[in-house]
Amino acid sequence: MGKSVLVINGPNLNLLGKREPEIYGSTTLTDIEALTRAHGGEIGLEIEFYQSNSEGELVDAIQGAAGRHHGVILNAAAYTHTSVAIHDAIKASGLPVIEVHLSNVFSREEFRHHSYISPVAAGVICGFGAKGYVLALDALADIIK
Amino acid sequence: MGKSVLVINGPNLNLLGKREPEIYGSTTLTDIEALTRAHGGEIGLEIEFYQSNSEGELVDAIQGAAGRHHGVILNAAAYTHTSVAIHDAIKASGLPVIEVHLSNVFSREEFRHHSYISPVAAGVICGFGAKGYVLALDALADIIK
Amino acid sequence: MGKSVLVINGPNLNLLGKREPEIYGSTTLTDIEALTRAHGGEIGLEIEFYQSNSEGELVDAIQGAAGRHHGVILNAAAYTHTSVAIHDAIKASGLPVIEVHLSNVFSREEFRHHSYISPVAAGVICGFGAKGYVLALDALADIIK
Amino acid sequence: MGKSVLVINGPNLNLLGKREPEIYGSTTLTDIEALTRAHGGEIGLEIEFYQSNSEGELVDAIQGAAGRHHGVILNAAAYTHTSVAIHDAIKASGLPVIEVHLSNVFSREEFRHHSYISPVAAGVICGFGAKGYVLALDALADIIK
Amino acid sequence: MGKSVLVINGPNLNLLGKREPEIYGSTTLTDIEALTRAHGGEIGLEIEFYQSNSEGELVDAIQGAAGRHHGVILNAAAYTHTSVAIHDAIKASGLPVIEVHLSNVFSREEFRHHSYISPVAAGVICGFGAKGYVLALDALADIIK
Amino acid sequence: MGKSVLVINGPNLNLLGKREPEIYGSTTLTDIEALTRAHGGEIGLEIEFYQSNSEGELVDAIQGAAGRHHGVILNAAAYTHTSVAIHDAIKASGLPVIEVHLSNVFSREEFRHHSYISPVAAGVICGFGAKGYVLALDALADIIK
Amino acid sequence: MGKSVLVINGPNLNLLGKREPEIYGSTTLTDIEALTRAHGGEIGLEIEFYQSNSEGELVDAIQGAAGRHHGVILNAAAYTHTSVAIHDAIKASGLPVIEVHLSNVFSREEFRHHSYISPVAAGVICGFGAKGYVLALDALADIIK
Amino acid sequence: MGKSVLVINGPNLNLLGKREPEIYGSTTLTDIEALTRAHGGEIGLEIEFYQSNSEGELVDAIQGAAGRHHGVILNAAAYTHTSVAIHDAIKASGLPVIEVHLSNVFSREEFRHHSYISPVAAGVICGFGAKGYVLALDALADIIK
Amino acid sequence: MGKSVLVINGPNLNLLGKREPEIYGSTTLTDIEALTRAHGGEIGLEIEFYQSNSEGELVDAIQGAAGRHHGVILNAAAYTHTSVAIHDAIKASGLPVIEVHLSNVFSREEFRHHSYISPVAAGVICGFGAKGYVLALDALADIIK
Amino acid sequence: MGKSVLVINGPNLNLLGKREPEIYGSTTLTDIEALTRAHGGEIGLEIEFYQSNSEGELVDAIQGAAGRHHGVILNAAAYTHTSVAIHDAIKASGLPVIEVHLSNVFSREEFRHHSYISPVAAGVICGFGAKGYVLALDALADIIK
Amino acid sequence: MGKSVLVINGPNLNLLGKREPEIYGSTTLTDIEALTRAHGGEIGLEIEFYQSNSEGELVDAIQGAAGRHHGVILNAAAYTHTSVAIHDAIKASGLPVIEVHLSNVFSREEFRHHSYISPVAAGVICGFGAKGYVLALDALADIIK
Amino acid sequence: MGKSVLVINGPNLNLLGKREPEIYGSTTLTDIEALTRAHGGEIGLEIEFYQSNSEGELVDAIQGAAGRHHGVILNAAAYTHTSVAIHDAIKASGLPVIEVHLSNVFSREEFRHHSYISPVAAGVICGFGAKGYVLALDALADIIK
Repeated sequence: MGKSVLVINGPNLNLLGKREPEIYGSTTLTDIEALTRAHGGEIGLEIEFYQSNSEGELVDAIQGAAGRHHGVILNAAAYTHTSVAIHDAIKASGLPVIEVHLSNVFSREEFRHHSYISPVAAGVICGFGAKGYVLALDALADIIK
Repeated sequence: MGKSVLVINGPNLNLLGKREPEIYGSTTLTDIEALTRAHGGEIGLEIEFYQSNSEGELVDAIQGAAGRHHGVILNAAAYTHTSVAIHDAIKASGLPVIEVHLSNVFSREEFRHHSYISPVAAGVICGFGAKGYVLALDALADIIK
Repeated sequence: MGKSVLVINGPNLNLLGKREPEIYGSTTLTDIEALTRAHGGEIGLEIEFYQSNSEGELVDAIQGAAGRHHGVILNAAAYTHTSVAIHDAIKASGLPVIEVHLSNVFSREEFRHHSYISPVAAGVICGFGAKGYVLALDALADIIK
Repeated sequence: MGKSVLVINGPNLNLLGKREPEIYGSTTLTDIEALTRAHGGEIGLEIEFYQSNSEGELVDAIQGAAGRHHGVILNAAAYTHTSVAIHDAIKASGLPVIEVHLSNVFSREEFRHHSYISPVAAGVICGFGAKGYVLALDALADIIK
Repeated sequence: MGKSVLVINGPNLNLLGKREPEIYGSTTLTDIEALTRAHGGEIGLEIEFYQSNSEGELVDAIQGAAGRHHGVILNAAAYTHTSVAIHDAIKASGLPVIEVHLSNVFSREEFRHHSYISPVAAGVICGFGAKGYVLALDALADIIK
Repeated sequence: MGKSVLVINGPNLNLLGKREPEIYGSTTLTDIEALTRAHGGEIGLEIEFYQSNSEGELVDAIQGAAGRHHGVILNAAAYTHTSVAIHDAIKASGLPVIEVHLSNVFSREEFRHHSYISPVAAGVICGFGAKGYVLALDALADIIK
Repeated sequence: MGKSVLVINGPNLNLLGKREPEIYGSTTLTDIEALTRAHGGEIGLEIEFYQSNSEGELVDAIQGAAGRHHGVILNAAAYTHTSVAIHDAIKASGLPVIEVHLSNVFSREEFRHHSYISPVAAGVICGFGAKGYVLALDALADIIK
Repeated sequence: MGKSVLVINGPNLNLLGKREPEIYGSTTLTDIEALTRAHGGEIGLEIEFYQSNSEGELVDAIQGAAGRHHGVILNAAAYTHTSVAIHDAIKASGLPVIEVHLSNVFSREEFRHHSYISPVAAGVICGFGAKGYVLALDALADIIK
Repeated sequence: MGKSVLVINGPNLNLLGKREPEIYGSTTLTDIEALTRAHGGEIGLEIEFYQSNSEGELVDAIQGAAGRHHGVILNAAAYTHTSVAIHDAIKASGLPVIEVHLSNVFSREEFRHHSYISPVAAGVICGFGAKGYVLALDALADIIK
Repeated sequence: MGKSVLVINGPNLNLLGKREPEIYGSTTLTDIEALTRAHGGEIGLEIEFYQSNSEGELVDAIQGAAGRHHGVILNAAAYTHTSVAIHDAIKASGLPVIEVHLSNVFSREEFRHHSYISPVAAGVICGFGAKGYVLALDALADIIK
Repeated sequence: MGKSVLVINGPNLNLLGKREPEIYGSTTLTDIEALTRAHGGEIGLEIEFYQSNSEGELVDAIQGAAGRHHGVILNAAAYTHTSVAIHDAIKASGLPVIEVHLSNVFSREEFRHHSYISPVAAGVICGFGAKGYVLALDALADIIK
Repeated sequence: MGKSVLVINGPNLNLLGKREPEIYGSTTLTDIEALTRAHGGEIGLEIEFYQSNSEGELVDAIQGAAGRHHGVILNAAAYTHTSVAIHDAIKASGLPVIEVHLSNVFSREEFRHHSYISPVAAGVICGFGAKGYVLALDALADIIK
């Protein structure tokens, strides 16, 4: 039977492609979901897609993935830099979690250079836009196979 | 047709005037809402008033203001000092946001001296109590006219 | 008439005893609730028990305790290190709040050594596992009697 | 009898509107003086207007305000970030002092984020250009009435 | 046969209740000793009580506890914040050591927020006055039973 | 005609799979080269593979890539954390450079958390072992197509 | 022939005894001058007394003392913490300079704990109010005899 | 009846005048005692003189001064920079304590610029050699009269 | 017609060659003026020479240069390290300003390593004594020709 | 007989004028060499010109200059900010070394503000492009004549 | 006549070989003394061996060595990182002091990386266990011969 | 058969005894080599001696020692403070490496107090000049026997 992956998106990612298109382009989160589902289909991974602006709900989602999914792709957006709660949820989940960022956070403001997620992630992928989710699926497939 | 402003209040502001009156006085958030609505009426701005203790709901509120309001007055209270998510929501909203604080945060604890909101706010007003909301309305009227 | 205490537990504590038993042991939050209720019964304190993964809901809970309870036992878990909002809620509540941690946070990662809660707590108890809740009850009884 | 306010402007503000108009616009300090005087007239506050490039003269001016004025509006410009002497003069004056900045200093260089004036100011208004002086007058009227 | 506990008190605690009663109350170290011995009697722990103003003598006392006692309750007072020697003695002793402070050190000066003892203590109890020693006995009983 | 990619490996990567196999596994740099070449063949990218222990030679290699290759995959290993010279070479090259690390550098020593390369890289991939090179090829193909 | 001493007072000291008497007492700078002159008379030192709010004028005064006086007593007030120019003037003057503060600056705000003057002063006297000038005269007499 | 002062000297001051005379001169601690006793005699203060190399014994001495002396002159030497225990003893003693240093500590190594004693001292005198003790006696006489 | 340059010298430079000749040599500011005027004559630049010990007057001088001169050579001495006001005046002047220091500030005290002027200067020349002014004239000639 | 100068250029300077001409202009290192040789000819200095991307080779070059040249002009580029080895080589060489930078490093990234070379250089010249080498030759001529 | 060396051991070293043998091995301080005496005998150095847990007694011991011994081998253990008093005693003693540590302190906790002793020691030897004392004897013999 | 040791010397050590003899004495690296070989002969260790100014070549040398030598003595000079690459090479080599410095680096500039090598070295010996290599040989013999 197939493996399943939960793709979790954090605060303000629901606006993707709708605001500041000159910066973030016109790709929406729905486009990314479609792209991710399509690639999941090609490599035999079932995809569940989730977004929330609430730190607590992201903690809930990561907790809920344990037992239902084989791995998590997490773009925690702003909470990346401030959330010890998500850090703890990842450790508690026991699942491989891949941290993804659309932009290269290291070429942005200083406060985006630190991540509470990276030390407990299996790996980090950043700077490749929507393509980053596809790469993360490939990486996760490699880990959970 | 008239312009509209969303006034957003963050955590613990719902207690205003009910606790620690010796510090914060007896003005309640309802009083501030009345004062703000009255002044809005005088200068032709429609006011929507909102309070939440949840960072995620404040992000939702700021996102929701875009398209429905012409500006935001934001007293993010404690989240001022910790929320990158609200910072990102303000940038994404494309709206002018005025940061308001009832007390002079710079004469309080060190951890209240840094604001994630100030760099993306149109301006900052602090230390004037309820009067600060009225000043913020005047400032916003000047910006969005 | 009896005194009442609200015991509040923060993010990921709902997983206690279910994940990483090699680290945290097999005691669940339900076990801790039972232990706490039992001890409360012995020393004449009524216990209300609450858990949430959401910072905003923890703020709500602390606010709600004022007027209904005589003291709070708070294990804010990850939010201990990041939440100014909970700090403010404790100050506004006017209640004695005892900070509890299951593990000795001072022998863990550097970012767990700072607490926004300690400066506004009545006292701090950490490192004694579930027993810490019982000790906190005794301490609180001493304060609110 | 009417109340009187001293408006003090610090270094380089005499150049306002004359240099770097693409950044600071074409409003001159004389324009701001006129705007402030006009608004003062409307709300019954007598205005004295002063500018100096010298830290010592600004200290003199703040000292001199005590006994002659009921409050001070202070845009200390560059000295905001470096002058303990002005900090001390404000404390010694016993007058309410409102700190004003034309631009949003928090979105500029790091060294402009710290103010020696804010901790001893009644309040802070920044980012609203010339309008900030009008808002400060309103705020001051509220304090000294 | 019964278990034995050494209670060690650091510098200036000999003055307790004799100086600054408005701050520390009128409870003396002798009162605390009596309280501790009484509670030890109730729960079957033999108590030895010790105080010194000398860092070296505190090191000696901790070293001497090994083999003679089953655990240590340590209020190292000022040496908490400066003594690597006591840190090393605790590690070398192999005994469970519970760190106690009468006041909530986290609401006092910055230099009292760091403890060299906490990382090697079994747990920490602070802010409960003399009651803290009783709680520490209970905690220690739980550990050494 | 086909696109070409230069894969550059920094100091000590020549030892891969030969030392500390319990940590780094038994995959050698030759294995990674084969894996990378194979995947390059599949997606139509010509691969040149290079390793040096010298910072200056890595600068030479990056400079030399301009005009001969369409992109660079760079695992600068230890120089990641210390080399401004490589930072400058990347900027001067005008080529898209993808930063790869075999291990998750963010869960290692503090001094490995800062990278001089990230701010000028197109993106970063770390923590996936040899698979990271394959992902980087896919990412680079997406950028240079 | 007699020795001569220049006593220099910095910003806001002209207000001494006139403002905030509850903090600084009712002794004025004129009182201190009288006290200093009287003691100078007793120990055979001629006194010149000077005050300015301007950093540049204080630099002028220190420069001017060389050749005319045998030593300087300097209470630079706020400029103590910010003036490299006064530091340089003291070094250039070649005169013994005694740094005096009325209050104990080390028990006040953090930014008053650093002095640019101390490293180039002959000695420092602080916390003794007006008496500090008398002590400084005695110390200076000891040095220049 | 006369007032009494305890003069306390810390570690290595017993060597004064015996070692490194090219730096510290040939004045011994016995000379300083004589000088201090002589001046005490002149101004009607009884002097007790004490030296110890042990932090604990200095704490004992300060504690012991309360009730027996009217003030303390303290040259804590190296413990100035490291002893929270002495800081606490001074606060507990309730006596005026004057901090004295022979050399100008602010022109020496960085680690000598911070004092745990200054914030709780009545005042500080440094840089005047043996004369500093005489000045401290005068200052103390002024405080305790 | 010829170009004109204003040479501005900051605090204590008026003492050059008169004090501490063993350090700064015997060249006076008048000598430097002569040297600079002579070289200005050779390369066709008219020279105005100015010195002040006052930060405010230096700001005035820089402001006054705009419209009257084609460039500025600025040795701000001590104000280099502390003056945001001069930084702002340079930006506002719109003139090319060359920062000159007689000594190599980078081999002196730590607090002389930071310059508020460098980021807004056209370039920096330090360590060459009086010759530095000549080099600065050549550099400025190159810029304003 | 004539004096001889070695001009040493560090990493990536070989690309000058070939890449990023919009930033660095079209002047090549060969142009700078010609300019420098021409000016050397005019003022009677023999010029040797060298460039390397390797820190070790730059150390070799500086070592080799001793005994063969009378001074060094060094643009260490990126190694300026990271190389203690070059710092040590300069000290060991005993030659006067002038540090040159084409751009104003102080208006660039924070990590370019620190130089390991400045403290051991005779002087520093930065921000004047190719002209900086000519100025450095003049400065060096002044030193070695 | 022979030379004499004092070997001083600091806090907790009396426990060596008795506690935590899995970490520190089974060599006791008595074994080290024997080893040191034996090697001293071989190279003609008389050995005196001393241990104390008290900082003050270690200061006494170092002071006492002057005049009686020709050099000191000092393993100050925990006081290495906290004792300015021992630093000062070493300087005052005028003796060559060799700092020894059994373990490699640089691979342990951050707070063990700083030594107040190293700057005033003749040299440092760490990481070689008991052998370090033998090496220190050889080094000292080389210095004092 | 005998054991073999590689002695590696870093940048600028080739100049030893040739430059700055007043600081480093007249002992050359060749002298140290002879001394080391002689002592190696006495204790049965074969010595290979190597020096390079290039970080990459030092990495090569450490890598090359594995399999050919039984231990390394490393004086990495300036690279001690900046080279993560050498740190990694030591770890990868699996050999015991002893860090040696001729001078006491802890009494020199701040930037020489940190070593990237110490945490991965078997031990550290510094401050004993050429003798340090002999001590290191003895220490290494003790480890590899």
